[in-house]
Amino acid sequence: MIQAKVAEILESDQFLQEFKVSGWVRSFRSNRFVALNDGSTINNIQCVIDFEKFNPETLKRITVGAAISVKGILKESEGKQQRVEIDVKEVTILGDANPEEVKLTILSPKRHSLEKLREQAHLRVRTNTFGAIMRVRSKLSFAVHSYFQQNNFYYVNTPIITGSDAEGAGEMFKVTNFDLKNPPKNEDGSIDYKKDFFGKETNLTVSGQLEGETYALGLGQIYTFGPTFRAENSNTSRHLAEFWMIEPEIAFCDLDGNMDLAEDFIKYVVKYVLENCKDDLEFLEQRLANEDKTKPAAERSEMGLIEKLKFVLENNFKRVSYTEAIDILKDSKPNKKKKFKYIIEEWGADLQSEHERFLVEKHFKCPVILFDYPAKIKAFYMRLNEDGKTVRAMDILFPGIGEIVGGSQREERLDVLKEKMAELGIEEKELWWYLDTRKFGTCVHSGFGLGFERLVQFVTGMGNIRDVIPFPRTPQSAEF
Amino acid sequence: MIQAKVAEILESDQFLQEFKVSGWVRSFRSNRFVALNDGSTINNIQCVIDFEKFNPETLKRITVGAAISVKGILKESEGKQQRVEIDVKEVTILGDANPEEVKLTILSPKRHSLEKLREQAHLRVRTNTFGAIMRVRSKLSFAVHSYFQQNNFYYVNTPIITGSDAEGAGEMFKVTNFDLKNPPKNEDGSIDYKKDFFGKETNLTVSGQLEGETYALGLGQIYTFGPTFRAENSNTSRHLAEFWMIEPEIAFCDLDGNMDLAEDFIKYVVKYVLENCKDDLEFLEQRLANEDKTKPAAERSEMGLIEKLKFVLENNFKRVSYTEAIDILKDSKPNKKKKFKYIIEEWGADLQSEHERFLVEKHFKCPVILFDYPAKIKAFYMRLNEDGKTVRAMDILFPGIGEIVGGSQREERLDVLKEKMAELGIEEKELWWYLDTRKFGTCVHSGFGLGFERLVQFVTGMGNIRDVIPFPRTPQSAEF
Repeated sequence: MIQAKVAEILESDQFLQEFKVSGWVRSFRSNRFVALNDGSTINNIQCVIDFEKFNPETLKRITVGAAISVKGILKESEGKQQRVEIDVKEVTILGDANPEEVKLTILSPKRHSLEKLREQAHLRVRTNTFGAIMRVRSKLSFAVHSYFQQNNFYYVNTPIITGSDAEGAGEMFKVTNFDLKNPPKNEDGSIDYKKDFFGKETNLTVSGQLEGETYALGLGQIYTFGPTFRAENSNTSRHLAEFWMIEPEIAFCDLDGNMDLAEDFIKYVVKYVLENCKDDLEFLEQRLANEDKTKPAAERSEMGLIEKLKFVLENNFKRVSYTEAIDILKDSKPNKKKKFKYIIEEWGADLQSEHERFLVEKHFKCPVILFDYPAKIKAFYMRLNEDGKTVRAMDILFPGIGEIVGGSQREERLDVLKEKMAELGIEEKELWWYLDTRKFGTCVHSGFGLGFERLVQFVTGMGNIRDVIPFPRTPQSAEF
Repeated sequence: MIQAKVAEILESDQFLQEFKVSGWVRSFRSNRFVALNDGSTINNIQCVIDFEKFNPETLKRITVGAAISVKGILKESEGKQQRVEIDVKEVTILGDANPEEVKLTILSPKRHSLEKLREQAHLRVRTNTFGAIMRVRSKLSFAVHSYFQQNNFYYVNTPIITGSDAEGAGEMFKVTNFDLKNPPKNEDGSIDYKKDFFGKETNLTVSGQLEGETYALGLGQIYTFGPTFRAENSNTSRHLAEFWMIEPEIAFCDLDGNMDLAEDFIKYVVKYVLENCKDDLEFLEQRLANEDKTKPAAERSEMGLIEKLKFVLENNFKRVSYTEAIDILKDSKPNKKKKFKYIIEEWGADLQSEHERFLVEKHFKCPVILFDYPAKIKAFYMRLNEDGKTVRAMDILFPGIGEIVGGSQREERLDVLKEKMAELGIEEKELWWYLDTRKFGTCVHSGFGLGFERLVQFVTGMGNIRDVIPFPRTPQSAEF
């Protein structure tokens, strides 16, 4: 007897062999055909039961959601829906699923809204859609690690709890061990953080970049891949309070090398899932097509999911300077006809997602890398160009997703960095260790951050970021 | 000209080819021999400079810690210390390192204590020891992902911020968006968490297990690998407030399968680093041997580092029931002579690390898996045995490290689980979603947790856990 996963059995040619397989019942038709799934694939194995040979009490317990174990013989299927099936000799009920209770959950065999599925995030992975998304997410994670490891990057776990609040990437959550009802105070009424667990004020990290830089300037090329946090009240389909970020950082690498790396990296991971998640992607493509049918024609995707992924693989990302982009936007129809909410009037304007979408989806119709942004709208650590007004920053914009990567060449010159910090009121003593890297053997270096969930959204075609992470954290929501 | 990493050049046979390499100066002897390192390997490339051909102003700036870029011809080395060297044609100083300032840091070329290195955690990765540790840590991480992915486990990112405080694995850090000076309060004076970011009290996770189980019961077999937190005031060489944990969870798998998995997994990752980190492990073995020389004979390791790793590979972990272990301990010399701080008097006693160390280091002299612990000293979710007093728990104990794995078969029976929760005062409404997994198609399932830093300690031979994570978080310490 061979104990096997559904995925293995579906590929097997060992006909007439006895197999054992355990899983959850997806359907039971005509008191005869059990569709069994164990999570190893989107597809079910058909288990054929001759009801006359089984105890009716057992048969009654084969209901949607129940866990059962089946022994039987592998056969070619007579039905056209599947290549193989199992001729069942023995059924064991492992765990029942009361149909009356199942009816109240998303396990019940009918169409449930994504909103409802989110409310039962502990069960939704048992549906076809979320099984597929989460398998793809897992493969995509491994593709990330594989890419960097093959290219001799070292994985670095930068701290999650940070005493540094100078990163400036966004609002931070506080971490404390205090009893909030009665935290110790100083004489002047301020909180006495010396008495807190870490002896100072601490927060959840918004980025591992600064710590990552210290490691790149020793190990040469590193990447992080870990959770990051934003305490921003952004209740949108594009924001999470807790999300996973990938941040490579490379010594002796300028902005061009950084753009090359980001493009090569994205193409590698997209190729990896195309090669390793065929069944799941086909299912997700169909799901997206069905969803599109419910939308007005103008909002539908021009390409199917897989076609879109192949398009990214096969085309160079368009590299456009901020200055060029502003010219294009100023001359654009929606700008002239005042269709943009924020009209682009002059160089220096911050780009909104409507502008990014226009550039990517209407003008270039391909992934776009914008670079050399005005210093004023970018972070303090980005390298100032010789023009004195732009920095070596780059953002990668994707159709349907918007910004997926933000990166830069870092300011490696101690004096320029200090000047910039002074301008912005960032105290040197807050970042003494960061400044040290510019004191002792500084060098050209670059890196970027890629929001992992945005990438999963792109690859799976899911419109809401809450549907590509197991248990989303958003304002007013931290269930499970 | 070939632009290359030091690791590549050291392996290269392209003699008489011109190479370009960038890195940090480790030493500059006799105004002639630069040892250059770029983090790609523990070894340096020797760059030979004919000082008569270079500007003395440039030569003066080639100091320990400086970043330089070198062009030159690859040659077989005349020295015995290295196989190849670079005959330098061109030197570019990228970043200076003022020798007077370097002297005040751990970059200065002399022996520094591990304590001092910890204070400069942003620079310590540039030392041989920490370069080696962090390269091994990175490879070990990848081995973890590779093992599970090859075995068709899915990677799941369980939430870091959790609204669930019933896990019971330890003290939790609070996460809040409140101004601690003035948090909103209810009429009765309690904190009004409804007004906090998530609309409820939230903490940093101590384990992803419970959420992981919900995913295993859909995807079949999953693993987590992410940060976990303990707000415990344990200022020891074995504890961190923030550490990375690996938690696989497998449906249709009992405790025996769980032990098999854990042992197979550990052997795989140890083998992986033995094969992929040879130079770093040899260096770390020597470091450990040198450290051992400073210790009293009784405290020295019996085996060298690499020998110890091979020993783990080549020997089965000894599987011993808790009951057998208690008998061994009761009869042991240190128990009879009252050398243990906690004397083992009867069945049911919780094992302290002195007892675990005795079993592993003195009695069995190999990794040990203890199983079937008294229910009273273990968590609520562990499966009760038929004897009604033990649970299907297992701990793996390693020489020099102590507990490295804790796992169990999970209680899959809804009624037994509810009874246990009631006994311990865990409210069902706190864990409604966890109980749901036992209502809808429950099945035998198991899993374990492995503290990643303990594993890195074991593999690198580092005695203090603060030295195997880039930026350790411990009581009163969250610098960087």
